[in-house]
Formats: sequence, structure tokens, C-alpha cells
Amino acid sequence: MTERATPVASRAVSRDPTEVDRNGLEILCREECLRLLGTATLGRVAISVGALPNILPVNFRIVGDEVAFRTTVGTKLEAATRNAVVAFEVDDLDPMYHTGWSVVVVGVAREVTDAAERGRFEAANMPRWAPIDAHRIVAISTQMVSGRRIPPGARRR
Amino acid sequence: MTERATPVASRAVSRDPTEVDRNGLEILCREECLRLLGTATLGRVAISVGALPNILPVNFRIVGDEVAFRTTVGTKLEAATRNAVVAFEVDDLDPMYHTGWSVVVVGVAREVTDAAERGRFEAANMPRWAPIDAHRIVAISTQMVSGRRIPPGARRR
Repeated sequence: MTERATPVASRAVSRDPTEVDRNGLEILCREECLRLLGTATLGRVAISVGALPNILPVNFRIVGDEVAFRTTVGTKLEAATRNAVVAFEVDDLDPMYHTGWSVVVVGVAREVTDAAERGRFEAANMPRWAPIDAHRIVAISTQMVSGRRIPPGARRR
Repeated sequence: MTERATPVASRAVSRDPTEVDRNGLEILCREECLRLLGTATLGRVAISVGALPNILPVNFRIVGDEVAFRTTVGTKLEAATRNAVVAFEVDDLDPMYHTGWSVVVVGVAREVTDAAERGRFEAANMPRWAPIDAHRIVAISTQMVSGRRIPPGARRR
């Protein structure tokens, strides 16, 4: 039995010169990474707690060119983000439809203490997922940002 | 002006002896953490890449008492999960309704190489979000697992 090749419309996407990594994922440019960060409010921070790695979810905002979130004094997150290098990740992945992206920021987490600067961050109205008040503001530069996206039509294995 | 205290029905939840952390979040027991891990397929792994922290999303399954996911040889994830201590996080948080939970597993990531054991992991049918084939199977013990949940009626700040 012979089969005639039929055109598959959904795969007939125009090929732009997108760079792809070793996993077959599209490498996103800085501008696209920052744009995607601006579409989300929930991220995850990788920190070290007692020499062990940990990941904590945080609500964040982009303020200027920094990722900003709030912490409470005396918590793991607050202790681990005192001038430490941390990774901050945001993604929007759909396991069902196999689409999505992930963006990672790596940088030194600094506390925002200057009154005028705090005002600028507070104006961003950062929510927080934990119910206890969080008065410390932590900011991470987006200088080191990278991102990946599942290319359209990528098959799932 | 005096105000009469009015009963707030939504806050009249029965108080069970749930332990709460410094952030006001419910501390989940091991059994609840494992149950919640079993409800998800997408997690995030915190690894070190060139001495810098990073976070990568992975599709996973619980196989026995381990978290299992696939990697591709030569990738950051594969290199960073060779007998290294990693953190693995799963959450289901709703920023709109301010509900949800987060569970973290910390442990040594080991490669599953034994043929019989591989068969057991492959039977779990682990998907992967990257399109390139991923033949290495990484497993992390759930011996160190912890979790938090936003308590019902917690106000958002």
C-alpha cells in the first residue's frame, strides 16, 4: 500500500533564524526574556540554606531593570538573599499542549534600603504568597538573563 | 464611634493543630508532601552550573520513593545532576485566588543505570518538555521533603 504525502498545515511555519540549544529548545534573546518576565508575577528563587540548595516560590515585579520581591526578617529567604548570588526562574509551561517558555535570571540579591528607592519599589505593589507581612525588599539585576521556548510543532517524547 | 464586632463567616474555619512557619504558612507533613508530588508532572530543579545557581523546569514522575526525570547527555542538566545535591520543587499556586502549596525535595541526584531498574523507571513513562531525546534517567530520593500551604482565609498583603 502506498501513501500519498499530504501537506500538514500546522507544520508549515515560516523558519526564522532562531538559535536552538542542545535540547532542541529555542534560545530567547534578552529583549524577549525581559518581555516574558513582565508578563508573570510568580517566580521561584534558588538559594542555599545551611549549604543545601532550596527553591522557594515568590511573587515578584520587574522594577526598572531588576526583579523585586519581598521577604520577612528572620526567614530562610531573607537570610539566603543577603548579598548572595541567586537564581530566579519564571516559566509558563503547558504539559498538556507541550508549549511554553522558561526564563532564568542569575545575580546578586541586594536589599533595597534607601528610602527614596524603597518608595519606587513599593509603588510596584508587590504581592506576596505568604500571609505574614514582609517588609524587606530584595532586588536582583537582570543583567544575566537567559530563556528557552519549546519550538512550535516540537514533538513530545 | 464604636464598632460592633461582626462575625466573619469566611474566617470561621475550624482550627486544627496545624503547625505554621514564620511566614504564616502551614507546614505540611511528609505524607501530604508525597501525595501532592504525585498530583503534578512539572517541577523545577535547582543546580549549579559553573559555580552559579540555575533553575531548570523538568517533567517528572514519582517512581517508588524517588523523584525521576530524564536528561540528555552533554546538557547542563545532565552535567549538574551527576551525584550532586540538588533541590527539586513543585508548586501549585494561584496568585489570583491566593491559594496553593509548594513542596521541595533535597537530595543527591543519581543516574539510573542498572537495566532492570531502568525498566522500572521507563514504565513510569516520563515525558520531557524539551524536544530532543533524553536517555539518561536521574532519580532523587524523597527522604528530605518539606512543604508549605497557604492557610485558608489567609489575607493577601
